[in-house]
Amino acid sequence: MKPSISPRGQRMPASPIRKLMPLAVEAKKRGVRVLHLNIGQPDLETPAPMRARLAQVERTIAYSPSQGTPEFLDFLAGYYRRYGIELEASQLVATTGGSEAILFALFAATSDGDEALTVEPYYTNYNSFATLAGVRLVTVPTRGEDGFHLPGREAWERALTPRTRLVILCNPNNPTGTVYSRREVETVAAFCRDHGLFFVSDEVYREFVYDGQQAISALSLPGFEEQVIVVDSLSKRYSACGIRLGCLATRNPEVHQAALRMAQGRLSPPGLAQLAALGAAELGPDYFDAIRAEYQMRRDVLYAGLTSIPGLFLRKPEGAFYFVARLPVEDAEDFARYLLSEFSHEGATVMVAPAAGFYATPGAGRDEARIAYVLKREDLEEAVRVLAVALPAYRAARGLAATVGVPAVG
Amino acid sequence: MKPSISPRGQRMPASPIRKLMPLAVEAKKRGVRVLHLNIGQPDLETPAPMRARLAQVERTIAYSPSQGTPEFLDFLAGYYRRYGIELEASQLVATTGGSEAILFALFAATSDGDEALTVEPYYTNYNSFATLAGVRLVTVPTRGEDGFHLPGREAWERALTPRTRLVILCNPNNPTGTVYSRREVETVAAFCRDHGLFFVSDEVYREFVYDGQQAISALSLPGFEEQVIVVDSLSKRYSACGIRLGCLATRNPEVHQAALRMAQGRLSPPGLAQLAALGAAELGPDYFDAIRAEYQMRRDVLYAGLTSIPGLFLRKPEGAFYFVARLPVEDAEDFARYLLSEFSHEGATVMVAPAAGFYATPGAGRDEARIAYVLKREDLEEAVRVLAVALPAYRAARGLAATVGVPAVG
Repeated sequence: MKPSISPRGQRMPASPIRKLMPLAVEAKKRGVRVLHLNIGQPDLETPAPMRARLAQVERTIAYSPSQGTPEFLDFLAGYYRRYGIELEASQLVATTGGSEAILFALFAATSDGDEALTVEPYYTNYNSFATLAGVRLVTVPTRGEDGFHLPGREAWERALTPRTRLVILCNPNNPTGTVYSRREVETVAAFCRDHGLFFVSDEVYREFVYDGQQAISALSLPGFEEQVIVVDSLSKRYSACGIRLGCLATRNPEVHQAALRMAQGRLSPPGLAQLAALGAAELGPDYFDAIRAEYQMRRDVLYAGLTSIPGLFLRKPEGAFYFVARLPVEDAEDFARYLLSEFSHEGATVMVAPAAGFYATPGAGRDEARIAYVLKREDLEEAVRVLAVALPAYRAARGLAATVGVPAVG
Repeated sequence: MKPSISPRGQRMPASPIRKLMPLAVEAKKRGVRVLHLNIGQPDLETPAPMRARLAQVERTIAYSPSQGTPEFLDFLAGYYRRYGIELEASQLVATTGGSEAILFALFAATSDGDEALTVEPYYTNYNSFATLAGVRLVTVPTRGEDGFHLPGREAWERALTPRTRLVILCNPNNPTGTVYSRREVETVAAFCRDHGLFFVSDEVYREFVYDGQQAISALSLPGFEEQVIVVDSLSKRYSACGIRLGCLATRNPEVHQAALRMAQGRLSPPGLAQLAALGAAELGPDYFDAIRAEYQMRRDVLYAGLTSIPGLFLRKPEGAFYFVARLPVEDAEDFARYLLSEFSHEGATVMVAPAAGFYATPGAGRDEARIAYVLKREDLEEAVRVLAVALPAYRAARGLAATVGVPAVG
């Protein structure tokens, strides 16, 4: 008798960021250069002092403590201290990327059948982990016209049910690039406190804020210590996505202990990654300034280029390295497939992530795409040229009217 | 209002292997040398060609494909081929240690409220992942007197309920060291096939089989392709526990696809680990022979030593690097705490893992400990001397009769 996977296994969603990858592979086989605006994989160098630490690998690459090595936990405490955030080692658990920190937070705070609140569009993998956890992701809408800023408290109150256990927010936001103000973050924290919810704050883009502004860490809000669980990652901060290292930071001892027990269940976080991470302590204070300047330039280049394309709509976001842009198409996934399968311009094409996978509401975001600016200037400029030619070509190929600048016909 | 962690978060068990670690840290602070027989952390060298690969790290340590790098998937296929097991890349998913492979297998095969069958004693972290998954671990007893070999099919039939979704077995076994025969493995596979269950076979100790015997991989059984999910790890095989790299291997396409979607949700397995792993391809065929000879010698030394201690009972196991021994004490956890807190012999003491955490049945295994032979010969000999002195000293300290050799009074 053939066994079947479970309803939970069946519900597990494919990644909207990665599912078109086979088409990109095919395009490359045809000799087409694919400009990857679909994935948050920076092209910057992982700092040399981090890579250099790998020469110090021990003769036996042993399990590290489940919580992380004392040296890495010290490194993390020092990192937060520079933001004025005091954390003890007993408030930190090293994780396998930010991903595992999301998993620990969700599983500590919820049981099967519970609900988690977030905004829409949201980081798509929240849905993956919620599906694993048997948790329904309930969304509060945000709009491109408002720069995807948060709605007022009444929207959160309307979404609340007796099964709501937490709010999870990414700030600076993936996929929209929005940076929430102190007032916005405090509104969510107060909502959580008043209803006994956890506030899971995903702050992996903390350094990626432009125009002299700063992101507000939920850990810096006095009076919300019991609510806040921060999930964090070194991936973007140090252009080191492949090491898979992050942490869960909370001043709620019950959450910390539950996360630690889960950490024991999976034995230890990656050891080579923890070794490499220590090299980041050698980086000067100007490291992030240079990174920030580079991404701000890229944002400005891509924003200027994209807004010059007729019918394409986006507001300039404050942080991270993504836009969610409305395209003059009915179905951004069909357009993304077209780009990879049917189109090239001067030997190149562009890969974007269709935004529908970042929405829970059926049909929402269908004409939007997430576009990352993780490539160097010349590549971004080339991507703009490709998209400027591709959009009218696509509309012609699909029999759509040539005139755009008005919302695409639904 | 202060939020509480969920019932699921509360149920999450602490590791019986790691929970006494703070006592070991205290003992070391007092200058006592602690011989770690509690944890399967080999003291052997991670092969130099694996460590050498880290010098080839790329300028940007990028995400790898969610499924694993093509090179690592090729390496895995080649590894299995040497055991006569043909697997395509499309039947493999690289995972963050064997741990994540267990998680993927459980979550693909079950929903909240389902049941999983295993033997007792079992690898304790099955309980951790089952708790995360909301799955009840239902156990079939095995006995030290039988060398912890499997019971007949009728025991499995008795444990079956309409909620049973899978059997999970570790072969060679952690914690008992038992290696199941072909007949034993086929009996379980046939039970699974007849009832439409998955057979999750944890084979991370495949190479650790002594006296010229061999472990039977569930992947080598014809006719059970739909049933079998193998979880595997490089940790023990290459003395590289800290890299956190393993895989999930299955010929069931539905399971593979579900595991791949989960893999996409957490983005990618550790990149540095996959790089290091490729160095293992340079190891000659005698690599495992030498490792096997070393562990067989260690097993024989420790077995001879332990069985010379009055009142201590164990059968000689065939594989892995653990014993489950019955001690002449009522409560092995109390004895383990005594060893770390109140005892030392010539400046040394021993840490063991109380076996109760490897049992689901309340009270079962209370007088047993898991003892790993991952240390070099002299350390094992010293550990035996420590235990030989510690057991009578403990019995005196706790007011137990000096005479042993009969079962400890319950």
